[in-house]
Amino acid sequence: MSSLITEDFLLETDHARILYHDYIKDLPLIDYHNHLSAGDISQDSSFENITQVWMSDDHYKWRAMRTLGIDEKYITGRAEDYDKFEQYARAVPYLIRNPLYHWSHLELKRYFGFDELLDGSNSRSVYDLTRQILKTPEYTCRGLLKQMKVEYLCTTEDPLDDLVHHRTLRKSDFTIGVNTAFRPDKFLCIDRIDFQDCIMELSKIVNKEIQTFQDLLEGLLNRMEYFHNNGCRLSDHGIDTIPFSRVSDNLVEQIFSKRLRGMKLTKLEIAQFQTSLLLFLSQNYHRLGWIQQFHIGAYRNTNTRMYKKMGSDKGWDSIGDFTNLKSLMSFLDQLDQNSILTKTIIYNLNPSENAIMATLVGNFNDGTIKGKIQWGASWWYLDQLDGITNHLNTLSNVGVLSCFIGMLTDSRSFLSFPRHEYFRRILCNILGNDIRKGHLPRDYKWLGKIASDISYHNVKQYFNLT
Amino acid sequence: MSSLITEDFLLETDHARILYHDYIKDLPLIDYHNHLSAGDISQDSSFENITQVWMSDDHYKWRAMRTLGIDEKYITGRAEDYDKFEQYARAVPYLIRNPLYHWSHLELKRYFGFDELLDGSNSRSVYDLTRQILKTPEYTCRGLLKQMKVEYLCTTEDPLDDLVHHRTLRKSDFTIGVNTAFRPDKFLCIDRIDFQDCIMELSKIVNKEIQTFQDLLEGLLNRMEYFHNNGCRLSDHGIDTIPFSRVSDNLVEQIFSKRLRGMKLTKLEIAQFQTSLLLFLSQNYHRLGWIQQFHIGAYRNTNTRMYKKMGSDKGWDSIGDFTNLKSLMSFLDQLDQNSILTKTIIYNLNPSENAIMATLVGNFNDGTIKGKIQWGASWWYLDQLDGITNHLNTLSNVGVLSCFIGMLTDSRSFLSFPRHEYFRRILCNILGNDIRKGHLPRDYKWLGKIASDISYHNVKQYFNLT
Amino acid sequence: MSSLITEDFLLETDHARILYHDYIKDLPLIDYHNHLSAGDISQDSSFENITQVWMSDDHYKWRAMRTLGIDEKYITGRAEDYDKFEQYARAVPYLIRNPLYHWSHLELKRYFGFDELLDGSNSRSVYDLTRQILKTPEYTCRGLLKQMKVEYLCTTEDPLDDLVHHRTLRKSDFTIGVNTAFRPDKFLCIDRIDFQDCIMELSKIVNKEIQTFQDLLEGLLNRMEYFHNNGCRLSDHGIDTIPFSRVSDNLVEQIFSKRLRGMKLTKLEIAQFQTSLLLFLSQNYHRLGWIQQFHIGAYRNTNTRMYKKMGSDKGWDSIGDFTNLKSLMSFLDQLDQNSILTKTIIYNLNPSENAIMATLVGNFNDGTIKGKIQWGASWWYLDQLDGITNHLNTLSNVGVLSCFIGMLTDSRSFLSFPRHEYFRRILCNILGNDIRKGHLPRDYKWLGKIASDISYHNVKQYFNLT
Repeated sequence: MSSLITEDFLLETDHARILYHDYIKDLPLIDYHNHLSAGDISQDSSFENITQVWMSDDHYKWRAMRTLGIDEKYITGRAEDYDKFEQYARAVPYLIRNPLYHWSHLELKRYFGFDELLDGSNSRSVYDLTRQILKTPEYTCRGLLKQMKVEYLCTTEDPLDDLVHHRTLRKSDFTIGVNTAFRPDKFLCIDRIDFQDCIMELSKIVNKEIQTFQDLLEGLLNRMEYFHNNGCRLSDHGIDTIPFSRVSDNLVEQIFSKRLRGMKLTKLEIAQFQTSLLLFLSQNYHRLGWIQQFHIGAYRNTNTRMYKKMGSDKGWDSIGDFTNLKSLMSFLDQLDQNSILTKTIIYNLNPSENAIMATLVGNFNDGTIKGKIQWGASWWYLDQLDGITNHLNTLSNVGVLSCFIGMLTDSRSFLSFPRHEYFRRILCNILGNDIRKGHLPRDYKWLGKIASDISYHNVKQYFNLT
Repeated sequence: MSSLITEDFLLETDHARILYHDYIKDLPLIDYHNHLSAGDISQDSSFENITQVWMSDDHYKWRAMRTLGIDEKYITGRAEDYDKFEQYARAVPYLIRNPLYHWSHLELKRYFGFDELLDGSNSRSVYDLTRQILKTPEYTCRGLLKQMKVEYLCTTEDPLDDLVHHRTLRKSDFTIGVNTAFRPDKFLCIDRIDFQDCIMELSKIVNKEIQTFQDLLEGLLNRMEYFHNNGCRLSDHGIDTIPFSRVSDNLVEQIFSKRLRGMKLTKLEIAQFQTSLLLFLSQNYHRLGWIQQFHIGAYRNTNTRMYKKMGSDKGWDSIGDFTNLKSLMSFLDQLDQNSILTKTIIYNLNPSENAIMATLVGNFNDGTIKGKIQWGASWWYLDQLDGITNHLNTLSNVGVLSCFIGMLTDSRSFLSFPRHEYFRRILCNILGNDIRKGHLPRDYKWLGKIASDISYHNVKQYFNLT
Repeated sequence: MSSLITEDFLLETDHARILYHDYIKDLPLIDYHNHLSAGDISQDSSFENITQVWMSDDHYKWRAMRTLGIDEKYITGRAEDYDKFEQYARAVPYLIRNPLYHWSHLELKRYFGFDELLDGSNSRSVYDLTRQILKTPEYTCRGLLKQMKVEYLCTTEDPLDDLVHHRTLRKSDFTIGVNTAFRPDKFLCIDRIDFQDCIMELSKIVNKEIQTFQDLLEGLLNRMEYFHNNGCRLSDHGIDTIPFSRVSDNLVEQIFSKRLRGMKLTKLEIAQFQTSLLLFLSQNYHRLGWIQQFHIGAYRNTNTRMYKKMGSDKGWDSIGDFTNLKSLMSFLDQLDQNSILTKTIIYNLNPSENAIMATLVGNFNDGTIKGKIQWGASWWYLDQLDGITNHLNTLSNVGVLSCFIGMLTDSRSFLSFPRHEYFRRILCNILGNDIRKGHLPRDYKWLGKIASDISYHNVKQYFNLT
């Protein structure tokens, strides 16, 4: 079988090939948002087999396998690691046109030099091959990052996290920058079952009982400063929609108190609480010079039966149809009016909102900082050839492509870094097609510069990493 | 004029040509959802002229003609059959890029061997030619089905229908499987003017006066069992949106009683009634082993003046912007929690909801049945080259294309079956372009298998027709 | 640097080239909706430099420059004209893939014969070159219109406008038809801060104190008749969404009175007022034989800080996610029921609503007038290669492309007319690609006719300009 992942994979024109090979291919990676384990990096963990590194936490694969009618035993269940891998290998030929098909082969080639198509017939040999390779010292977590020329990455942590691994890493001689992002979702989602527990944990950590909303703010501020002192310059929020329902301090105290007493809140009260908390957080992100991120638009935990069995992030989430971007806009406007709008990256999940998002962010770009408010890269269900292409096209049409800070993996796996390569090839291919059609001049040097800005230099500048 | 409908129509690459001609072209058709008349099949009706078979029930053509400024007399009015056809023939050259342009020429070629472009200059000769051909025995309803290699089809009937023609057909030696789908729309749409009449008719048929909601459920159950005993294994629902507002049995009885007394219901009451009824129906579809379909998202009867003159389904409907897929999701979740979620096909009309739908269905695919919950094929306003392409691309990106059960005509005309060919060519063309670009390996055998699964084998398995 | 704007710019096939060069290129322009100054045309103003004609009123350029981090001083601020131009020239290479990149070079070539790529290195020479050329008599406002073969154009005026320049123009020997469109936005937007002032101004002009809603209707009718007597046959409305909340005359009088007394209205009251006023206006547009336009779907003045500083239309607007097209449909339906639905053009800004809009307008095309209800051309954020392509494709798929009345500039600049050329090239390119793929017959004469209908003849007929 001839190889799928050729030198010129995704590059349809000579123009694209020149741009990618001469200007982009060798650039380092900055992965400013992912869900890797800092502990794994700090302890330089290694993996016993490909199932562990590839399938133990990848709900993309899980969903596809379920749709194919594969028993949960082989997905998140008790089957042996090899049997799970075999089931996935058998599934791969049925996943044509899904990004998993490209990603899987790209990762097998880049990390393991495996250049055939994966299927049931070679699952055993691939399993054995990768197991051997994973034993070598270059295939620890740190080794995997180095192989991919990662220069800097940000994991995502909870306000309750003690950042012990990040502290260890900062003190170590590890050359790749590993930072964290502050993600206070569990304090925003006041309707979570475990909200009171979270408050109690926070009380312990900050060594002061949290009884009021004001206490909560102080507790979170305490943690933000702790994060800041440990190098953090980034926050993130995974939330259905950004609310904007302002209320008095007095009222938000009542809402918080009501919740602490175990009572159920109305939708409006939740929105009011979230608005108050978000405004406080954003004000402090600005004061501390942080960047803030918002990942909006998912329907999460939609399958109650499976949620009860498995918990969150197990492949039972989908794209929401919320359509209330006006409140997001009002939120940004409020910050802007008070001159406390910090650099912001917003990721939407519903592709029907692409043009709205791409123009919305422009409303708060006021000439003070290049690309200050960013429409974040294609995310989750949109992170594939079509989604990335649509994102780049819409951004080009109604925004300024050249200011874009580019790609991130958002992944839980140490094998996902070729997604940057995937993105970069798509970007070069788009520019190459434009040259071919005469929509852009054949100025490789200039377009190579723009492509490298988007792939690497813009984000480096945006994150003040220079 | 050279022919439009060539051997390689819609097939842009050699890859696509090989896939279509070697693997797909000769597959039989399974048309699991249409609006054909079982009576016409049972009685093996024939047609006097092309106007009767082509234009008497085709609101696609009607809308296009109206936009072109053609008088209603030639559309649904009293003009002679030939004059109507002539008006349409004159219109055809102005319909470039509308699917009618391709469909019309494809149907003229496939059924009548007519290979020129239709326009005002040849309308008389085409009319005469087709009239001659329609007289031959191969051009009765049954003949037309056989010509297209139809293997199995499902018409759509009302709970009040006596299925006399389906019963006759089942007893006959007609080799094409003709089944029905149970479509209880008139009992769901409690706000219809004729709701009370429908209830009375149902009372008569089940021979028991329906006075309560419980009576209604029993009456419908009676009919479902009647349908089941006559072979039915499929239901369908044409409804704006799927509501999810659960209420007590007591309250839904009050709502039903209120309506029977001729009172107007609130929107909420309608949703509550529908939720209760749908949950009951779906529970029984599951118990009986049926597949359930939902066609959602249309604004129907939007032109009041014309609705009063003509009634429903006359070309005055359009795509709605409802955005409440969350309630559809809650509905499916409710069934799933109670382990009564049967195989389900959901068709959306608003293309902005494509990605949402494609991911939503995946939330309930739990590994028990391959492609259990299906995002239905491009429908109505989306049933054309771009719509089908978008559907297949979105399905590929966020779902599993290879599990798709493929195309259906949804048509009222016996001449619409080449839409399957249209779909199949598009599918092969998409795969062919992917091979050309190197996005897929040049493995004709494998991709031919996937294409034939989508075109034929998947649906056969899904409907247990093997 | 080789030229970007070649003879065959945007024309990818020989088919497209033949269609454009042989059938379309030389057609005159009808620009039925723009925001040009009738005074500038009447007085035949000239421009001192390119900054004045290119940058003084172009919020597309302003937004792009702000995103690039350019100081407001060089955008709407006090910098010298040359310095502003230099900043923009430097920005241009960073605007690749934004329509500004193509438009800027197209305008420099068409008006000034400048055929290189603009950047910081040639900003001085381009500034000087264009300043010299702008001094010549062919480069006055009238000269610029003549150069582009403009045959007829409609500016946009307020009911309070005295149309003095239009009157002068009508009496002059200027050969290009210059008409106006009646745009009563300030009377529809009852929640505007200056609503009472507008009412007072209207009172003065119609010489009768406006104290009641009935007075307002009479006042506006007076102005409509004034506009009509000065040649106006077109209206326009820029409004978030079209409401439909009917109330009694009595109630709307109370709402109006409440507002005149300076009280704040509820959202519902605003919608009720607007519904009453729009129904009245539309009735009279029909009576007078006018065409009505609606531009819907923008979030305007989203950045409060900048709105307070600069006012409206300064680049702080974006695409809205309103999703209430049902009320627009009810509004049209109401007019249709009363047989007072005049020719109507509706422009949407949210591309996710394209298919909905394209089918919605078809609900009121009843065969009386070709293309009576039009889905207006791609507008504002959608007015570029992709947006126009999507519009034409969606229109083709679910409507009748051949009835389309085509392009308009919607611009405030006398240099924007090449946007018609841009549109026409895209149209020909789409048809050419269809021929290449075999989706359309290679009948240049027929497709050239269709393309010229869309580019010129349809709108001429629609506006009764023959």
